[in-house]
Amino acid sequence: MNGAEAVVRTLVASGVDTCFANPGTSEMHFVAALDRAPGLRPVLTLFEGVATGAADGYGRIAGRPACALLHLGSGFSNGAANQHNARRARTPMVTVVGDHADHHLGYDAPLTSDLEGLARPVSGWIRRVGGSAEAGAASAHAVAEARSRGGRPVTLVLPAHAAWDEGAQCAAPVSPHTPRRVEPERIEAIARALARPGAAMILAGPALHGDGLEHAGRIAAATGVHLLAPTSPARLESGAGRVMVRRIPYFAEQAVACLAPYQTLVLAGGVEPVAFFAYPGRPSRLAPADAALPCLAGPEDDIVAALADLADAVGGGAGSAPRRAHVRPEAPNGALTPQAVAAIVARALPDGAIVSDEGFTAAVPTVEALAPAAPHDHLFLTGGAIGQGMPLALGAAVAAPDRGVVSLQGDGSAMYTLQALWSQARAGAKVTTIVFANRAYAILGIELDRVGAHGAGDLASSLLDIGRPALDWVALAHGMGVPAVRVAETAALAAALDTGLRENGPFLIEIDMTAAEVGLTPRRRHDVIN
Amino acid sequence: MNGAEAVVRTLVASGVDTCFANPGTSEMHFVAALDRAPGLRPVLTLFEGVATGAADGYGRIAGRPACALLHLGSGFSNGAANQHNARRARTPMVTVVGDHADHHLGYDAPLTSDLEGLARPVSGWIRRVGGSAEAGAASAHAVAEARSRGGRPVTLVLPAHAAWDEGAQCAAPVSPHTPRRVEPERIEAIARALARPGAAMILAGPALHGDGLEHAGRIAAATGVHLLAPTSPARLESGAGRVMVRRIPYFAEQAVACLAPYQTLVLAGGVEPVAFFAYPGRPSRLAPADAALPCLAGPEDDIVAALADLADAVGGGAGSAPRRAHVRPEAPNGALTPQAVAAIVARALPDGAIVSDEGFTAAVPTVEALAPAAPHDHLFLTGGAIGQGMPLALGAAVAAPDRGVVSLQGDGSAMYTLQALWSQARAGAKVTTIVFANRAYAILGIELDRVGAHGAGDLASSLLDIGRPALDWVALAHGMGVPAVRVAETAALAAALDTGLRENGPFLIEIDMTAAEVGLTPRRRHDVIN
Repeated sequence: MNGAEAVVRTLVASGVDTCFANPGTSEMHFVAALDRAPGLRPVLTLFEGVATGAADGYGRIAGRPACALLHLGSGFSNGAANQHNARRARTPMVTVVGDHADHHLGYDAPLTSDLEGLARPVSGWIRRVGGSAEAGAASAHAVAEARSRGGRPVTLVLPAHAAWDEGAQCAAPVSPHTPRRVEPERIEAIARALARPGAAMILAGPALHGDGLEHAGRIAAATGVHLLAPTSPARLESGAGRVMVRRIPYFAEQAVACLAPYQTLVLAGGVEPVAFFAYPGRPSRLAPADAALPCLAGPEDDIVAALADLADAVGGGAGSAPRRAHVRPEAPNGALTPQAVAAIVARALPDGAIVSDEGFTAAVPTVEALAPAAPHDHLFLTGGAIGQGMPLALGAAVAAPDRGVVSLQGDGSAMYTLQALWSQARAGAKVTTIVFANRAYAILGIELDRVGAHGAGDLASSLLDIGRPALDWVALAHGMGVPAVRVAETAALAAALDTGLRENGPFLIEIDMTAAEVGLTPRRRHDVIN
Repeated sequence: MNGAEAVVRTLVASGVDTCFANPGTSEMHFVAALDRAPGLRPVLTLFEGVATGAADGYGRIAGRPACALLHLGSGFSNGAANQHNARRARTPMVTVVGDHADHHLGYDAPLTSDLEGLARPVSGWIRRVGGSAEAGAASAHAVAEARSRGGRPVTLVLPAHAAWDEGAQCAAPVSPHTPRRVEPERIEAIARALARPGAAMILAGPALHGDGLEHAGRIAAATGVHLLAPTSPARLESGAGRVMVRRIPYFAEQAVACLAPYQTLVLAGGVEPVAFFAYPGRPSRLAPADAALPCLAGPEDDIVAALADLADAVGGGAGSAPRRAHVRPEAPNGALTPQAVAAIVARALPDGAIVSDEGFTAAVPTVEALAPAAPHDHLFLTGGAIGQGMPLALGAAVAAPDRGVVSLQGDGSAMYTLQALWSQARAGAKVTTIVFANRAYAILGIELDRVGAHGAGDLASSLLDIGRPALDWVALAHGMGVPAVRVAETAALAAALDTGLRENGPFLIEIDMTAAEVGLTPRRRHDVIN
C-alpha cells in the first residue's frame, strides 16, 4: 500500500473516525485512499479555518481526536487561528498537511513555504514524514501525542512522495503518555490550604466536566470553598443538576473584583488567571497580590485522579455537592435586549444541548442565564482568535449528532469563518446559530475607551462599524444552503428558536440588535451588558 | 505624541496613503491616531486575508506600498496566505501587526503566540518595535525595506506599550536600497546569447509592464526572440497595442512543450520556471535539460535599466516591437462554455481595465481571449494560495478607482475570502466579479488523475464536489451589500457584464457553468479547457 493509505488505515486503527478536510493537489493520494481504507468519514470544508475549528469542536465533545486535512503551508496558515484556539483548549486533534515531494522543494515552486515554521507555533507536536515506510508509524505516534500531555493539536506533515510511494504499512495504535499522578504529599498540602479562610479553587480542563467536576463538587461540599472557572474554558458543564461553578469575568477590573475575596486560589488543571490584554497602568495578574496560588494539578497531570484523591482527603461524600436548581425564566416581552435574548435561549435550551459561544458583548447575559437552564456543555473561545464559533459548532454536532448545538455568534466574529455554515448543511449538522447583529465590533468600542485611546473620530469609528452596508445574515445563510430567519422582537425569536431546534440540520436566526441598542455609547453599552 | 501616532504620521510622510484594516484591542491606539494624523485612508475588512490581499492588489497597481493592519499572531495567521502571494508577487506592502505589551507577554495570555515565528516565513523583512521612541524610525525603515530588493511585504510588529507610550516622533522617509545595475559585460554576454538560434526571454516583474515591457519589445524586434512570461505573473500588461508575450501554461506537460523549442532561455527579472507541483516520475524543471538559462537580471536587480541597456546593445529601435492587434471576437450564441464566456468578456473589457484572475479551469480560455482585447493589466495568482482574487480586486480598485476591475473567480476559490465583497461595497470599489460556478474543485478532479491517485470512489468524489448544497452567489453577494445576478446563457451574460461595468461600485455575476459542463469527466474537462 502507499503511504497515504497507511496514514488513513492507521488513523482509523488508532480510533480516529472523522476528517474535516480541505485538500489540494498534494493531498490527492490521501483523498483517494479514503475509499480503499474505510472508517474515516470525510467532511468537506470550504476554508481551512473551518476544518481546524471543527476538529477542535469534535475533540472537545468526543474526547478523542478528529483529523484535519490541509494543503501546504498556506492552507495551514488559513487553519492556524483555530488550531491556536485548540492548543489553548488542549484539544486532541491531528492535523495532516501535505507538502511538496522532497525532490521538488529545492525548486521553490510558487506554493513552497516554510511549513514547519508556520506550524510550530500552534502545534504541540510536529513531525515530517520522511518516506512512505514510516507513514503508518508516524500516524500512530501522532494520535498518541495528540492524546498526551493534557491533549493538544499535533501536526503531521505528509510530503507528496511519502503519500504516493508504495511500501507502507498500517501501524498498531500507540499508547499516550501516562499523565503524572499527583503525589499524596501534595494532596495533603492542598487539603490543608483549602481549610484556610478565603480559599477557592480554579478548575480547568477535565475538572470542569464529568467525573472531574463531580469530585470538585464533593470537595466544595466538604470544605465550603467556592469553585471558579477561567473566563474561557474549553468545555464547562453547566445547567440544572450540575455542580455550581462561577466563571471569572472577561473585563480585567471585574475579574479582579471576582477574585478579591480570596487569599488562597488552588489551581486544578489550569494556570493562573491573567488579563486578556494589557491596559496602560493596570496589572496583568488578576488574583490579589498577596494571594497564594498553590497548584493541585497542572494541565498535563492526572487531574481527575487528583480531584478524587483530594475529595477523599477532605471527606467529601458522593452526591454532596451543591448543585444548580432548574429555574425557567419568565417569557420576556418587548424589545430584544441581550437580557431578553438570554431568557428566551434559557427557556428553549434542550436537555443535553451543546452551546458554542462566540457571542461577545451581546451574549454575555446568556452565559449567566443558562446556568440554571437545562443541563448542557458550554464551549468558549479559548484562545481569543475569533472565527471559532461556527466551525466549533459543526465539529461538536458531528461528534454528537443527536444532542443539538446552539451556536451564539456575534456578527463581527461570525464573518471570519462563515463558510462553516455550508459544511453544517453538507454534514446535516444539528446546529441552530443565533447571530447577534449589532452591526458593530462592539467589544472594540468598549476597548477603545478602556485602553485610553483618546481622540477617536470618524475614521476610527468607521473601523468599528460593520453596518455599512448591513450584513444580511438570512441571505448569507441561504447562499450556503442553510434555512434562516431574521427576528426583531421576543415572540418571533422564541418561535424561530423552536423551529431551529426541531430541524434535523442547521438553522440560522439573525437577531436585529440595533433596535434595542440604538443610541448606546460604548460606555453605556458596556454598562448594559455587564 | 504616542508611538501609534508616530507610526501613522511616518507612514503618510513615506508615501503610504491607504490602510486595509482588521484591528483588535491591541491596535486601538493606531485606530485612534487615524483622526489626529490625517492622510491614511482606512478601508475596513472583515477578515485579515482580505486586508493582506487588498494591500497586494494595491501595491501591484500603485507600485508603492499600502498598509495592512492586523491583530496579534492569530490575525496575522489569517492574513498569511495572501501575504505569501504578495511575497511571490514581490509586492511592496507594510503589514503592521499589534502585539501584547512586553510586560504582558510573559503571562502567556490566551492570545499570546510566537508572532515573529508566524510572520517570518511570509515576510521579506520583519521588525519588532521596542518602544515608542523608535516607532517612527522603524516605520520609515519598514516602508523603505518594502520598496527594496525588488519589492516585498514587510512586517512591523507594534506592541501595545510602544503604541500607547508618549515620547515618539514622526520620522523622515528613508530611501530604499538602490537596485544593482547590471554590468555591461553581462549585457554584452546576453546580447550574444540572444543571437544564437532558438533563443527566448522569460520576463518577470517590472519586465512585464510599462517601460520594462517596451524595452523587451525592442529587443524582440531587433533579435526575433520570443518573449515569454511565467505562468502566474504579478502584473502582465496585455491587450491591443501591447508588446506580445506568451505565458507559460500551468500544466507541466504543456509547459514543457511550450519551452521545448528553445536552447537558450534568458531570465529577465525572474527565476527558472518549475512545475507547480511534483508528479510521480516527472521532472520538476520545465526547460529542456540541455537548454542554457543565462540571467540578464535577477528579481532584485534594476531590471528595467538592464532591458534598456540590452535593447540598445542589440540595436532595438523605439516603437519597433511587435504588438497585438485589436481583434473583437464575434458575439457567441448558445451555451455558456468557457470559450463563450471568454469571448463575451473580451468583447466587453473596457480600455485600461484591470483583470484579477483566480478563475482556474473555467477561466483558462479567458486569458488567451483577452490578449487581443482592449489594453489591460492582468493580475495572476502568484503564490498559488487560493483566496487571492477578490481581495486583490478590492485593492486594485482602491489604487485605481476609475479604471474598472474585472474579477474572474472560480466558485471554490472565491469561498476562501468571500468577505472581500463586503469591503468592495464599503469602499465603493468598481469591481465586476464573475464567478464561474461549476460547483466543483474542478482543478482537483484533473489533478487527482494526473498525480496517479487511483481508486478514488464516492468518498473521494465528495471532497471535490462543492455543489451539495449549491452555493447561491447572488444571495451571498446580496448578503454583503453587492448587487448580483445569475446567468445561464450568452445574451444574459453580455447584458449583465454591461450592467456591472457601468456600476459605480461592485457587481457580481454568477455564471452557471454546470449546463455547459454536464457529463464531463475530469479528463474530458481537462481537454475542453486546454
